[in-house]
Amino acid sequence: MTADAATDRLTLEEQASLTSGSTTWNTTPVRDVVLALTLSDGPHGIRRQKDVPGDPLGIQGSRPATCFPPAVTLGSSWDPALAVRVGAAIAREASALGIDVVLGPGVNIKRSPLCGRNFEYFSEDPHISGVMGAAIVEGIQSLGVGACVKHFAVNNQETDRMRVSADVDEQTLREIYLPAFEHIVREAKPYAVMCSYNRVNGVHASQHRRLLTEVLREEWGFDGLVMSDWGAVNDRVAALAAGLDLEMPPTGTDDQIVTAVREGRLDPTVVSTAAGRLLTLRDRVDRAARFEDWDVDAHHELAREAARSSAVLLKNDGGLLPLDPTARQHVVVIGEFARTLRFQGGGSSHVEPTRTDSPLDALREAVGPDTEVAFAPGFTLDGERDPALVSEAVALAARADVALVFLGLPEAAETEGLDRTHIGLPAAQLDLLREVAGTCARVAVVLANGGVVSVSEWEEHAQAVLEGWLPGQAGGAALADLLLGRHSPSGRLTETIPHRLEDVPSHLYFPGADGHVVHGEGRYVGYRHYDTLDRPVAYPFGHGLTYTTFAYSDLTAEQTGDNRWTVEVTLTNTGNRYAHEVAQLYVAHDEARPTRPRHELRGFAKIGLEPGASARARFELTGRDLAQWSTGRNRRRISPGAFTVEVGASSRDIRLRTVLTTPGDGRGHDLTAMSTLGEWLDHPVGGPAVRQALEQASVPIELAQTNPELLVLARGVPLLKLCGLVPELTPETVERLAAHLAEEGAQHARPS
Amino acid sequence: MTADAATDRLTLEEQASLTSGSTTWNTTPVRDVVLALTLSDGPHGIRRQKDVPGDPLGIQGSRPATCFPPAVTLGSSWDPALAVRVGAAIAREASALGIDVVLGPGVNIKRSPLCGRNFEYFSEDPHISGVMGAAIVEGIQSLGVGACVKHFAVNNQETDRMRVSADVDEQTLREIYLPAFEHIVREAKPYAVMCSYNRVNGVHASQHRRLLTEVLREEWGFDGLVMSDWGAVNDRVAALAAGLDLEMPPTGTDDQIVTAVREGRLDPTVVSTAAGRLLTLRDRVDRAARFEDWDVDAHHELAREAARSSAVLLKNDGGLLPLDPTARQHVVVIGEFARTLRFQGGGSSHVEPTRTDSPLDALREAVGPDTEVAFAPGFTLDGERDPALVSEAVALAARADVALVFLGLPEAAETEGLDRTHIGLPAAQLDLLREVAGTCARVAVVLANGGVVSVSEWEEHAQAVLEGWLPGQAGGAALADLLLGRHSPSGRLTETIPHRLEDVPSHLYFPGADGHVVHGEGRYVGYRHYDTLDRPVAYPFGHGLTYTTFAYSDLTAEQTGDNRWTVEVTLTNTGNRYAHEVAQLYVAHDEARPTRPRHELRGFAKIGLEPGASARARFELTGRDLAQWSTGRNRRRISPGAFTVEVGASSRDIRLRTVLTTPGDGRGHDLTAMSTLGEWLDHPVGGPAVRQALEQASVPIELAQTNPELLVLARGVPLLKLCGLVPELTPETVERLAAHLAEEGAQHARPS
Repeated sequence: MTADAATDRLTLEEQASLTSGSTTWNTTPVRDVVLALTLSDGPHGIRRQKDVPGDPLGIQGSRPATCFPPAVTLGSSWDPALAVRVGAAIAREASALGIDVVLGPGVNIKRSPLCGRNFEYFSEDPHISGVMGAAIVEGIQSLGVGACVKHFAVNNQETDRMRVSADVDEQTLREIYLPAFEHIVREAKPYAVMCSYNRVNGVHASQHRRLLTEVLREEWGFDGLVMSDWGAVNDRVAALAAGLDLEMPPTGTDDQIVTAVREGRLDPTVVSTAAGRLLTLRDRVDRAARFEDWDVDAHHELAREAARSSAVLLKNDGGLLPLDPTARQHVVVIGEFARTLRFQGGGSSHVEPTRTDSPLDALREAVGPDTEVAFAPGFTLDGERDPALVSEAVALAARADVALVFLGLPEAAETEGLDRTHIGLPAAQLDLLREVAGTCARVAVVLANGGVVSVSEWEEHAQAVLEGWLPGQAGGAALADLLLGRHSPSGRLTETIPHRLEDVPSHLYFPGADGHVVHGEGRYVGYRHYDTLDRPVAYPFGHGLTYTTFAYSDLTAEQTGDNRWTVEVTLTNTGNRYAHEVAQLYVAHDEARPTRPRHELRGFAKIGLEPGASARARFELTGRDLAQWSTGRNRRRISPGAFTVEVGASSRDIRLRTVLTTPGDGRGHDLTAMSTLGEWLDHPVGGPAVRQALEQASVPIELAQTNPELLVLARGVPLLKLCGLVPELTPETVERLAAHLAEEGAQHARPS
Repeated sequence: MTADAATDRLTLEEQASLTSGSTTWNTTPVRDVVLALTLSDGPHGIRRQKDVPGDPLGIQGSRPATCFPPAVTLGSSWDPALAVRVGAAIAREASALGIDVVLGPGVNIKRSPLCGRNFEYFSEDPHISGVMGAAIVEGIQSLGVGACVKHFAVNNQETDRMRVSADVDEQTLREIYLPAFEHIVREAKPYAVMCSYNRVNGVHASQHRRLLTEVLREEWGFDGLVMSDWGAVNDRVAALAAGLDLEMPPTGTDDQIVTAVREGRLDPTVVSTAAGRLLTLRDRVDRAARFEDWDVDAHHELAREAARSSAVLLKNDGGLLPLDPTARQHVVVIGEFARTLRFQGGGSSHVEPTRTDSPLDALREAVGPDTEVAFAPGFTLDGERDPALVSEAVALAARADVALVFLGLPEAAETEGLDRTHIGLPAAQLDLLREVAGTCARVAVVLANGGVVSVSEWEEHAQAVLEGWLPGQAGGAALADLLLGRHSPSGRLTETIPHRLEDVPSHLYFPGADGHVVHGEGRYVGYRHYDTLDRPVAYPFGHGLTYTTFAYSDLTAEQTGDNRWTVEVTLTNTGNRYAHEVAQLYVAHDEARPTRPRHELRGFAKIGLEPGASARARFELTGRDLAQWSTGRNRRRISPGAFTVEVGASSRDIRLRTVLTTPGDGRGHDLTAMSTLGEWLDHPVGGPAVRQALEQASVPIELAQTNPELLVLARGVPLLKLCGLVPELTPETVERLAAHLAEEGAQHARPS
């Protein structure tokens, strides 16, 4: 039976009941027609709440599941194939735990490093966010479990998240905050999308018809179900009418829907359509194979691989890493996080892990019982200074060749519902680091944090810095793999590390006040800001070292169609170890006066190479990659002219460039009566026409030519407005000119 | 006869005819009832076009009048009393030239140094723009001539000025772009306001009802006439209905008004009201005394005083300035601008001067015939490199003790209708300076420019830099006065000089594209950006040296009423020359996360002191000076708490500080059902009430207390929304709580 047919069998009340849940995690069943669906948190693992009566908030905890690395980490892998495998593993666990729809991935943009939920998101860049998010969806849905992409849209902070209006211009929406969602919807076809808590330009996302219906469905072709974030609905009827199909959790307001229909305030097809979408979702997940269990060890191993692929080696002066136990290096381990690793963030994404590895145990196991790996915690997790712990650590470091110092953010710093107020590490940890560095010449810092932390004030004390992020439950073993050189680091930054918080482009606006957060920096988020203004940063977007080096050569670009190119480049491992390179393609527009970000990521390829080996990395470029949103035209527009394809190892380590040319999108600059004299004169067809008309009207253009200042003024005046200043030119003449141009079909592109 | 009574005697057609001009510079006469008014350009001097038939654009030039220093210069004097005198002198000339209304002052904000018309505006700061603009209006209207404040509003660029939409948030409008207009309207009561060409948030300024009627008239009490900028009207009927009383110049569309009334599309009182405003204006200017002429010498001398009071001594290493001819210093003068000074900008403000002084002539006259002042032009005005001129100048400099080098922008760089694309001086001039500095150890640069130029790439070659701006027709003598120490410099920067264009906060947005310019930097214009982010600048807002030094002492602040304080500080001339100090008062809010500019200019006092003398500078502070615009509440709001009063010699040279406290505006944080749990708990009355209600509802708050992460989440949830998550809490309970609070009248301020 089709969803439509099934809907027809339901009463209005039954249809309305389908548009909200029956419990916190279940949709509403209707007789024998519709079974309830079970939903569960889980961008990076399943949080299946224990079924304890009277505990809707899940205070009693959840059932064990594999805690994979959260998005901040997995995103740094730049490896969509890995994300597909992780998504599939999450789906397998979902199935085994009786879950129909997994509430993830989260693909909001990291507008500020302060956002308390950044660890659940991929990047400051929409391209990699979209590619990685689509991979997660593909993986989850490969087993027939539904994915629910969230939080739609412009949900970039926790502060006042249930009320704040994200005030953002259309161009910024279209180029920064919506593209990841659009890519995922178009490419991976998620079964569901979750609206966000916040308002967008004053309208609650849960009742934002333009976003939920016009953009999401009509433009992008989304055919799934839109559900609310938990508690995001403010006006039940308005939300349903706007395109919000399912309110979660229920608020006992289904009767408002029924009454609104009865009173003629709500079209009954809105209700049946929403109910039908729930039935469609039910149909889709019903096709899934059901699994009873999963291979706990294999999933733990996958979590380890994911963490290993995602850690970013920021710095490695003198090749301090990898450690070489065979060289009889005396390595000591310092920092409580080595023993008690932070591997995930707080809030709804919190997973009860099936097991955990500590870096210390993993290191000790790896080097074997014959090699001592001494440890001193150095600090406590509560952030208080403890001189005795520092003394102990310094004493340990004093007799070591290398001190491996595990630092990071406290758990309370990174949680749903709260933004950070600074990006520093705890002062007690920095004191420890300084003291250790004062006594041990070779220090490697390993970081555990979900949001970016500043490094500029302390990195002089470390020869090597490995950013491990929040590495999930197998993070300890993964870090040991990298530190000991069993694998080479292959993560790259998906977020710029600024020198200081004040350098972050959203700093003056974040998190807003008074119910509004203005997106003043617009499209200039992350590297789009730093690179366009050539501002110094600590580590640029895309940066990451490894244990070998790579050369780039033979950049080629072949046109394969209208505004389509295939770009290729040869990567060669010029070092001594197997490792991966992440080649990044940016499209650049070098403008004297910037009208867009200087360059933007449009492709990447992660390739593993043996020493001395080469491979071609390949990228496909389309017109969309060159377009920018035209606010005036309310569509994307490709301007004719030259652009540069840059390929490199980070946004600031461009190795090769080539200049290409596009004819534009064929929809050129149409002249109207309100086009300026300058625009008319510059137009291939309009120019001669307007010159002739001015001569016929006996306009003293020769006067303007002898008076350049006057010509400058006149060029900026719309033709129609010149009529007011030049009596010889009549509005009729101008309208005739514009009509003449339209007749000729002279929709010429402006000469570039 | 009152204007109302006169209007009653006019037919609809006659009334309509009054709402546009009869010629480019005249309003329409009606029988014996209404005589035409004559309008004229003139922010800094009268441009009375020669009455040449067939020359509406004024190509044949205008009649001579005193060219006073334009606003960029006069604003730098920080001397409103001087501006009153200049305004009165302009009015005297207007009267003598048959002008009823002077089209000025211009008080738009210098959002970017690139704006081609910046020389016509005062500052990047609305406070000083408003004070100086009000002084000009006061001066002009002191003789009964009308002033017309322009360009209302958000007209901050020339690029695409007739179409571009300035997209700007309400808070920025209210705190940056409107306050100068508001101050002038409230304090100086100008007879007229001119609307700008551009659109504001998509609506043409000429038909922006909210700006022209609701804000200007209903909020600020403006009772004068609103006219269009020349050619700014797009829809005659819509403009009239929005509050645009007079279209200039005429477009022959009065019949559209009549037809619209006849067809019922336009209320006839709209027409009679606009016509009545013209009659009111006619009445007002008819009361003016009429003058036949003016004292040309005295006005030239006033122009000289104004230029002298406005030049800014940026740098004076080793006390290079003033020059001391009695010391037999061998001074040479280099630079074409010494002979051919640029003293005004291009466009509608261009004045045909009554005479001009060149700096070279003035210097030679001052030192007398016995002292040779050799001169070499060094460069030509066309910007081309001329090696012969450079060689000549270098040879001259080689035998000098001091080389006085006159540099500046070419005329074409600064004109109405065109924005600059960079802020550099011409390369040929910088080459010259480098060569001169290579051969002469003591170099003083004198600048002639209306828009800010960067100094960072060349100022190492000069020990002294005197920024003369565009000094008006008596600029040459004024500069000689300062260079020779007959007077001490007393100008201060009203615009920050950045290190590079990329540092300017509007850089990524200016001048926009595609018909829109987004005000992404919002309120953070000029020093509000640099100081809040602690970014380095070349010279800060408010900066200016002189030939003596000043000490600040005894800062006092006395509360004189509700949110009213009198602040005083003692200034002492601690040097050896008479000079003026400009003491500046900033109100500062040092916030960990900025929600407003770090500090803002709220007062200034220019005081002349003999060596060793002291005086008290006095400032009045009101609640308005502490308020910021609340977008959520759509009104200004004063938050209770501490703020800092800073007094100093520039925005970065704060000498004294004191902390004051305000109780706020008494309109505190009202709790509603959508206030968060955290806001309720923190409220002095709401806190106990909600705690009791939660206990009565048996909400397990003790659970939240043992789970801090959960409490963090819950604190951010609006109380009404907690009902969805905590079944024990009902919407009825929440509404009862909110009602309870309202009943108690408990509109308490949030504890600070």
